[in-house]
Amino acid sequence: MEIKIMKNILDRNQNKANEVRTLLASKKVLMVNIISSPGAGKTTLLEQTLGEIGQKFRAGVIEGDITTDRDAQRLKKYNIPIVVINTEGGCHLDSHSISKVLDSFNLDDLDVLFVENVGNLICPSQFDLGETFKLAVVSTTEGDDKPGKYPMLFREAKAVILNKIDLIPYTNFSYDNFKTDLRKINAQIPLFEISCTRGDGMEGWYEWISGQIKTFKLQ
Amino acid sequence: MEIKIMKNILDRNQNKANEVRTLLASKKVLMVNIISSPGAGKTTLLEQTLGEIGQKFRAGVIEGDITTDRDAQRLKKYNIPIVVINTEGGCHLDSHSISKVLDSFNLDDLDVLFVENVGNLICPSQFDLGETFKLAVVSTTEGDDKPGKYPMLFREAKAVILNKIDLIPYTNFSYDNFKTDLRKINAQIPLFEISCTRGDGMEGWYEWISGQIKTFKLQ
Repeated sequence: MEIKIMKNILDRNQNKANEVRTLLASKKVLMVNIISSPGAGKTTLLEQTLGEIGQKFRAGVIEGDITTDRDAQRLKKYNIPIVVINTEGGCHLDSHSISKVLDSFNLDDLDVLFVENVGNLICPSQFDLGETFKLAVVSTTEGDDKPGKYPMLFREAKAVILNKIDLIPYTNFSYDNFKTDLRKINAQIPLFEISCTRGDGMEGWYEWISGQIKTFKLQ
Repeated sequence: MEIKIMKNILDRNQNKANEVRTLLASKKVLMVNIISSPGAGKTTLLEQTLGEIGQKFRAGVIEGDITTDRDAQRLKKYNIPIVVINTEGGCHLDSHSISKVLDSFNLDDLDVLFVENVGNLICPSQFDLGETFKLAVVSTTEGDDKPGKYPMLFREAKAVILNKIDLIPYTNFSYDNFKTDLRKINAQIPLFEISCTRGDGMEGWYEWISGQIKTFKLQ
């Protein structure tokens, strides 16, 4: 019985996600659904990315958080449209809440909409928001076994960001183990090895995301 | 409608949890439900704790994992009873799965049962397993804002372990911010600041958990 209920919830989520995707495609707005564990660095990644590509592209942000607007506060300095969705205990965003807040944006004035999902490596992967693609963020301090233990996100994402590479010398993280696991699950997925706080590897990421936004405009 | 369904699921979970709690109390087995984000160090904490208190107490482990038995493999060396529950995508353990696997243990030969929940800071907090208490594990590399952003676990837990304090010098983690947040949510909760890999602060934790097991036996 529970399985049937879950299927209904997912079906309704999927229908609304398809609507969102159609709307955003008609407006040529790329939507990135950013998913990670708590504290892997989603907000810091957004801070750096908005600082870098904010001159070239018109960006907006949807901040998913259980109860606070702390992450949104950190992004206020960029003077871009930001909407917070508080899930009040809910463990992921869904397409209905995304659909509702899209009214708050002027989609004709946007090139890219970043959605920072609730910090959770599991549930957000199961709910299509109508995004163009999912972005998986994982940090070295979580250990090298995350793709193997939480495969769904790494199967679904269009790219993986491995953050906090500056901390590898102080941990037992193994690049080899991480990559072997990841390649078994998703052989071709682009992997960006970065340190958001120190700046390592950010250029490759900026170039890739800029390319994605440009390509989406031309489609 | 979804809210009513969720309430039914939680009610049924609570009923079974009460059964589990009654059974374990009759057998004088303390059950600890260990909850954290992915990669905060639950398994390493268990490794160290079993190595230290395994001589004094008879311990068993239930390993909750989405799809692998990797964590259980790491604990095999202690020659204690271990049962793996694979949730196959599920984001938390529930009391029904715990109840089923309790048959695999000889409860008359146990003092303590550690349950390593699925790596997730949100959903496991909402499902009572019949545990004696929840233990929150959080690592410094996740940032100092976790109690404020994910309050439910920190409200529900009987103790908090702050792991990876050896990495603080390489991050922007602030003890003050962390403690201020935590104390607002749960003013009296015991906090153990440790490094599982380097050994800092472990004595206080071993003493506390040993005291909990002894007290439970005498009740």
